[in-house]
Amino acid sequence: MSFTYTRTIYFQDTDAAGVVYFANVLAICHEAYEESLAASSINLKLFFSNQDVAIPIVHASIDFIKPLFCGDKILIHLSPKYLTEHSFEIAYNIILAQTEKLVATAITKHVCIDKMSRSRKEIPGEIKQWLHHWSDAVAM
Amino acid sequence: MSFTYTRTIYFQDTDAAGVVYFANVLAICHEAYEESLAASSINLKLFFSNQDVAIPIVHASIDFIKPLFCGDKILIHLSPKYLTEHSFEIAYNIILAQTEKLVATAITKHVCIDKMSRSRKEIPGEIKQWLHHWSDAVAM
Amino acid sequence: MSFTYTRTIYFQDTDAAGVVYFANVLAICHEAYEESLAASSINLKLFFSNQDVAIPIVHASIDFIKPLFCGDKILIHLSPKYLTEHSFEIAYNIILAQTEKLVATAITKHVCIDKMSRSRKEIPGEIKQWLHHWSDAVAM
Amino acid sequence: MSFTYTRTIYFQDTDAAGVVYFANVLAICHEAYEESLAASSINLKLFFSNQDVAIPIVHASIDFIKPLFCGDKILIHLSPKYLTEHSFEIAYNIILAQTEKLVATAITKHVCIDKMSRSRKEIPGEIKQWLHHWSDAVAM
Repeated sequence: MSFTYTRTIYFQDTDAAGVVYFANVLAICHEAYEESLAASSINLKLFFSNQDVAIPIVHASIDFIKPLFCGDKILIHLSPKYLTEHSFEIAYNIILAQTEKLVATAITKHVCIDKMSRSRKEIPGEIKQWLHHWSDAVAM
Repeated sequence: MSFTYTRTIYFQDTDAAGVVYFANVLAICHEAYEESLAASSINLKLFFSNQDVAIPIVHASIDFIKPLFCGDKILIHLSPKYLTEHSFEIAYNIILAQTEKLVATAITKHVCIDKMSRSRKEIPGEIKQWLHHWSDAVAM
Repeated sequence: MSFTYTRTIYFQDTDAAGVVYFANVLAICHEAYEESLAASSINLKLFFSNQDVAIPIVHASIDFIKPLFCGDKILIHLSPKYLTEHSFEIAYNIILAQTEKLVATAITKHVCIDKMSRSRKEIPGEIKQWLHHWSDAVAM
Repeated sequence: MSFTYTRTIYFQDTDAAGVVYFANVLAICHEAYEESLAASSINLKLFFSNQDVAIPIVHASIDFIKPLFCGDKILIHLSPKYLTEHSFEIAYNIILAQTEKLVATAITKHVCIDKMSRSRKEIPGEIKQWLHHWSDAVAM
């Protein structure tokens, strides 16, 4: 089961070419990730300012099919996938609500680390549950 | 009757001090303005890319009472006010949902201009209706 | 003696109206503040992530005279001013380099606090020196 | 010959984890692209608001090796590469100045289109010259 986030495109998301600035679509995907964490009862304030464990993004990519304009309504379907005991990946399908057409796809890859030593660490339990909840994986 | 916009604080809104970056709160107020326009059936794409008339912000100010953190839910109460035949002002009260406390207040002032000559122009009819709808003004 | 920061306007600073998005000008003023701190040998990483003392912005205001476009070169003249033993204010004059005309003015007000209790604290010594360096004040 | 852009990391580039927010590094790479265009005498205002031809980004990817902090100085080495008569790619190497270590790499892919029909168009002459100038390609 994937998680779905709905969002309006705002004026500040756009640039002087009249469409959404490319890097802002990745930031909107990250909002979808945050909403999916909150939907799994993860406290975002504690999660993102944790002094021990961090789960930084080590890779991101995005492909654009159609431009997005101010006022457009989008849906983001998000599916996380377990990679290793330290890492996971999230796939995002960005859909324009009025046409139901795919307008962009993105991927982010996250690695769990000890914040001081920056060495790899096992994914915390609450994130494993979140992975279980929103991915189609049978077992982890 | 004021317009109310609800918003979650996202990770990208924050900075390395762990709280929302000051200028981002003004951008979030602008989202509230856009939602209030959409609620009055104004087409945001056409409105913000209009080649004839523009209504730029000529002044903005903000006062911060309490910091905002990632994951916080806020309400923004927005009240527009007619100033002259060319200009209006919007007041924003930013409330933290969990405490119902005021955390910031902001003001933006907008002047209607001809986009080419940049000379002042009368406020368009659809914006007058929006002002009527969301302000407490008796007559304009 | 004021501090001067030079900056090019980038594509991401603009919006679908073709000019710089209003709140981004305040963010660019903050860059000028950061460069003035660095010019007084203040370590920005330590300064902005300090766990004991924080100097949040409690008020900001901005007035726009002319629009700014992608590729424009601007100068920001920054002058800090001592307010009380806990607070200071910075005035920014934003000048378009090619015309030497004032295009915007802004003010930010900063209050020094204890990060845990959020009670007011005396301005740290290095910030007093920075105030001395870049303001016209005779004595503080 | 690659183009080099130097940049300080600012407070607004960071997030509550204390490091640069992932999508902002792509935006900083785009600044490097803009500076390389300006260095080839391309007028950025006209280029990015052209009503006939647009060269949107159709793909972007980024890999992070080390985190970046407020106040860090970075160098971005940018190398464009001709792909087809309608498209080119830019590779970015992001280097931390104090250690001379690679901290991230990124790629953006750009396709030239007719802005109205959104059909593919040949890369304009000034962009071909820019490609010649900053790429290592022998012939195009």
